[in-house]
Amino acid sequence: MGLFTTPIKTLDDLFTHMLQDIYYAEQQIAKALPKMIDKAGAPALKQAFEKHLHETEAQVTRLEAVFGSLGKPVKGVTCAAIDGIISETKEIMGDVGDPEVMDAALIAGAQAVEHYEITRYGTLAAFAKQLGHAEAAGLLEKTLTEESATDAALTKLAGAGVNRKAAA
Amino acid sequence: MGLFTTPIKTLDDLFTHMLQDIYYAEQQIAKALPKMIDKAGAPALKQAFEKHLHETEAQVTRLEAVFGSLGKPVKGVTCAAIDGIISETKEIMGDVGDPEVMDAALIAGAQAVEHYEITRYGTLAAFAKQLGHAEAAGLLEKTLTEESATDAALTKLAGAGVNRKAAA
Repeated sequence: MGLFTTPIKTLDDLFTHMLQDIYYAEQQIAKALPKMIDKAGAPALKQAFEKHLHETEAQVTRLEAVFGSLGKPVKGVTCAAIDGIISETKEIMGDVGDPEVMDAALIAGAQAVEHYEITRYGTLAAFAKQLGHAEAAGLLEKTLTEESATDAALTKLAGAGVNRKAAA
Repeated sequence: MGLFTTPIKTLDDLFTHMLQDIYYAEQQIAKALPKMIDKAGAPALKQAFEKHLHETEAQVTRLEAVFGSLGKPVKGVTCAAIDGIISETKEIMGDVGDPEVMDAALIAGAQAVEHYEITRYGTLAAFAKQLGHAEAAGLLEKTLTEESATDAALTKLAGAGVNRKAAA
């Protein structure tokens, strides 16, 4: 947002802006994941990231359905938050040499991304319900459930050996 | 992180880096909150932010105790993620005119901050335990519990009328 963007006057404007923001964010996540898949050492982590890449691509399509259900054009706006989160993850990835410490760093980075998505989809689903957009709310809640499941799976992977190996 | 920072070789290095990152993040949050308190319209939201500012100041002091328990110097490193999240929140705040839509936007922004803290303190507490830093783990878990409670309180405020008023 900035000087040349549409001012936010109503909750519907704020909802639309945040929808455009998460649409951009999902696309940046889809671009970042192949590098994370490449860097992951533990096979289970590599598989988790591959699964999440497919899921992210489906979530982009689902967001397009949300725009469609509202009769709004599909559009993204630069999201400084996801840019910052991804940039921080990339910087840490560039500084880690040990492959097992890398896995721990990748999980931490991926969970920061998941938590951003969890908070945004939570807000978006609440706004959609408040605005009476039942179809959009249902689609947004579906993605929210997937993101929460991914975050829980990553916590499990960290606890199931990744952190222990990184500390060894 | 970048060209002139210490390379991350061990899980302990990663833990220290992430501790410095959240130390910087908490300080940026403490700087951003007074503006959010100023912009909040609903008295309950203003109070929630005031309470969270005091809590944030105590969390900064608690992080200093974590550094102390590890025998490490208190230090912060620039955290691109929190800079991005706060910058996005400020941009949206600058674009909203209606006071009730502002409250909904402030809650969304504050929850994005909380979720970043939840994921980082979760990772830090897990790393501390793995590395055998019991005292640090206890302190980090205490803050994690507070951040989760703040996030839940904000969800409750949004549900208790802020979103409804913003949609009216």
